[in-house]
Order: sequence, then structure tokens, then C-alpha cells
Amino acid sequence: MAAEPKIVTAALIIIGNEILSGRTKDKNMGFIAERLTELGVRMMEARVVADIEAEIVDAVNSLRARYDYVFTTGGIGPTHDDITADAIAKAFGVGISEHPDAVALLSARYRNPADFTAARRRMTRVPHGGVLVENPVSTAPGFRVENVYVFAGIPVVMQAMFESIAHELVGGDPLLSRAVSAYLPEGVIAAPLAEIEKAHPGIEAGSYPFQRDGRFGSSLVLRSTDAALLDRATDALKSMIVELGGEPMEV
Amino acid sequence: MAAEPKIVTAALIIIGNEILSGRTKDKNMGFIAERLTELGVRMMEARVVADIEAEIVDAVNSLRARYDYVFTTGGIGPTHDDITADAIAKAFGVGISEHPDAVALLSARYRNPADFTAARRRMTRVPHGGVLVENPVSTAPGFRVENVYVFAGIPVVMQAMFESIAHELVGGDPLLSRAVSAYLPEGVIAAPLAEIEKAHPGIEAGSYPFQRDGRFGSSLVLRSTDAALLDRATDALKSMIVELGGEPMEV
Repeated sequence: MAAEPKIVTAALIIIGNEILSGRTKDKNMGFIAERLTELGVRMMEARVVADIEAEIVDAVNSLRARYDYVFTTGGIGPTHDDITADAIAKAFGVGISEHPDAVALLSARYRNPADFTAARRRMTRVPHGGVLVENPVSTAPGFRVENVYVFAGIPVVMQAMFESIAHELVGGDPLLSRAVSAYLPEGVIAAPLAEIEKAHPGIEAGSYPFQRDGRFGSSLVLRSTDAALLDRATDALKSMIVELGGEPMEV
Repeated sequence: MAAEPKIVTAALIIIGNEILSGRTKDKNMGFIAERLTELGVRMMEARVVADIEAEIVDAVNSLRARYDYVFTTGGIGPTHDDITADAIAKAFGVGISEHPDAVALLSARYRNPADFTAARRRMTRVPHGGVLVENPVSTAPGFRVENVYVFAGIPVVMQAMFESIAHELVGGDPLLSRAVSAYLPEGVIAAPLAEIEKAHPGIEAGSYPFQRDGRFGSSLVLRSTDAALLDRATDALKSMIVELGGEPMEV
């Protein structure tokens, strides 16, 4: 009997009116979701919220209590609508002020004091107790307060920030997956797939319909933390597809 | 003095483990956000939740009370992990059963009774009080209960469902926008932009940094329901960019 798998969870908060209006298409959720899966952390929920302090505070406080890690993207730039740092301070009930290490980093980047504008100084403000997150792309750092990581919204900067802290995330048992697809509609596959899941406790089965070249098919994904169990269930799934007259294609 | 603009709001709930694991990249949020903006409806919040009934119920109930419209995508197919219809029924505290019009639609599509499998019959289940939403792509309908629209997750199907109900959405005054970009960093633009916003009450100003060909720039977006005010503020914004030594590019 295998031990209970260790589950580590996370949530994501995407901050920004531009995502909600459709002007900017979010590219951060997919990246963070994939990287967390690789690191053995399960993203359980994601929210997109407006540039409104109370909304950010509510989202941070409801999610940081429920999940092991929370990540935020967006709203840490120099402009007046960049309110994430203040919202995080409010969520934790702590003060906020210029972090000396952040001031040092930006002073070094903007050597001419005239370039180190008041707006840029805003980017050195970190909630008390916060630890800087390195930004190798454009210097102005992110930060972490307890289990909440605060990243920039520009994908290239966000990704660099994520990678600079990826080593400190403690993952659980990785959730392994095997995907098999077939040109069989979900309506035919649904019942036998549920049987396979029932016959293999510890397996989660998912079914994702697709349309390709005008034909409908299903991508069937089995997930488990137990590799041997996953192999057995995948074999059963392939046999099931053949019995239904389909051709299993492993992805 | 212009009348107070009429604001109509919406929220989106994306349902599906495959989005949270990063296996599937969501394409529905951007589409719905853009279409709602065109229709004069403001998306205020979006959430991605797992295929867990209690999570869906919580999200539906907290958002349908706060916003004029709620849209959900995903989880209305034939498989055992398609639990959206049941979750919506539970959220509204109503029963759920096969909707005769949905049964008629699918019976006509699957003329051979052997093809009208039990799994496919599940797709005819609609919470009591629900009204069908047409699916011209693959027949199985979505539905609406009060202010909650329930759509499929496959983008081509979701988009067709959205268009089949778009005419019944009552939009507010459309939020007009003008975007001007320049190769000036946000740290330089931030303070003057805040001044422009302050000098033009009724204007919301947003600043979105970008990186292109290794140069940092800012895309500045002004929004208002008042077209004349928006023109005046845009002129002021362009002058400001020129004063800062930049070249305004209208997008």
C-alpha cells in the first residue's frame, strides 16, 4: 500500500484591468501553471482582478489562507495604477516603505539622479517583512511576503522572476500524467472511461474533446502520483479504445 | 453636465482542471473580454476553478450576486468530470432533469438510438428554470439560469454559443478607449500621466509597459464613456509625450 501522496497547492492572482477588458491577452497563467506542475505544485485556482485595492486585498487574503503558495502578477510598475504593493501590505496588515536593497539596485541602474524619478522610487516600496525577488531583466525587484510571491506582469520579466525563486518552492509528489487521444467522441468514451477510473483507485481521469480537420475526438488524460498504477491504467485505456473501434494515439 | 454613465458588469468562471495544470491554454477569457467590451459590458473579475462541485458553487454564488451577468465555460460535456450543470443547479437550489427541447435536439442528431448513449443523454440535463442556449456547432446546448450563462469549453463551440445570446445582453454606455504608445519608459511617463488623469475627471488612464526589439516603451490607454472628453485628454497626452522628448504613436 503506497503512502498518501503529499499534495502542495497554489493559487494565482492576475491583477490588471487590461486583461479584463481584453486589450491584453494573459500569457502568465499558462506559464505558471506548467512550471508549477513540473515542480510538483498543484494550481488549484486562478483569479483575474481589477486594479482596485479592496479586490486585490480580498483575493490575497482568501487565497493565502487556503493554499501553500500564492503568486500575483501585475501592478508593480511605477505608474499610479500600480497598486499591488500597497494592497499586499494592507492584506497582511503591515506598513510599507522603501526597501534599502531595492533602492540600492535602482540607484545603481539610474546613476544620473535625474533619471531616478519619484515614479521609479515607488518601485522600491516593499511591505514590511517582505523579501526581494530578483529581476534580471529590468532590475526593479518583485518580493515575497510569507507565502505570497509578487511578480511583474510583463511575461518576460515575470518568467525571470519565477525562475529566480523556483528553487525555493517545495513541491509535493509530482502528479504524473499520460495522455491518449482517439477520434472517438466523448459521448461514446464517457462511460467506459468512468469504469477505468473506478477500477484503478488513485487515478484521476479527464476527457478533453477536440475538433481537428472537421472531426471530433477526445484526448483522455490519466493522472496519478503512482507511476506503476498509471501504466496499468493506460494499458486498460488503450484496450478500451480498441474495443470501441478506435485507434489509440499516445501524445 | 453629462449624466452618470450606466455601468453594466460581468464576471467569468472558467471551469477545468486542464487549465489549472497548464495542459490546455485558455482561449475563452480573451474572446469573452473583448466581446463584452464591444457590447458595453465590463468584465470585473474572472476565476479559473477546478472540477470540484463546491468550488464551482461558491464561485457562481459569490459572483452572480455581485455582477449583472456571469458566464461559465467548460464542464458541460458527456463525461463523468463534466459537473457544471449539477453545480449550477446546486448553486440556485433547484432540481435538475432532462430538458425536453434538449432531448429533441439530440434525438434528431443521433437518429440511431444506439448512438444516443447514456453519456450523451447527460448533456440534456438542465437545472429547473433554465433556458437553452443554442449550439450551432455540435448541437448539445448550453443554458442560462437567471443571470448565469453556461457555455461549453471548446472555443469554437463557446464562441458560437456566445454569439447566439449576444443580442440579449443589455450593455451600458460603452467604455471608449484611445491608446497612444511611445518609446518612453513608464518611470518617466508615470507622473505626467497621473496629472492628465487628474485634469480630466471622467478619464481613466492606464499604462502598460512593453518590450520590443530590446527597447522598453509604454502603451498609454485613456478610457471614458465621453467621446469629446476622450479627444481632449488624448491631445493632452500626445503633447505630454512630445514634451518628454518622445514620439506619440496612436495605435
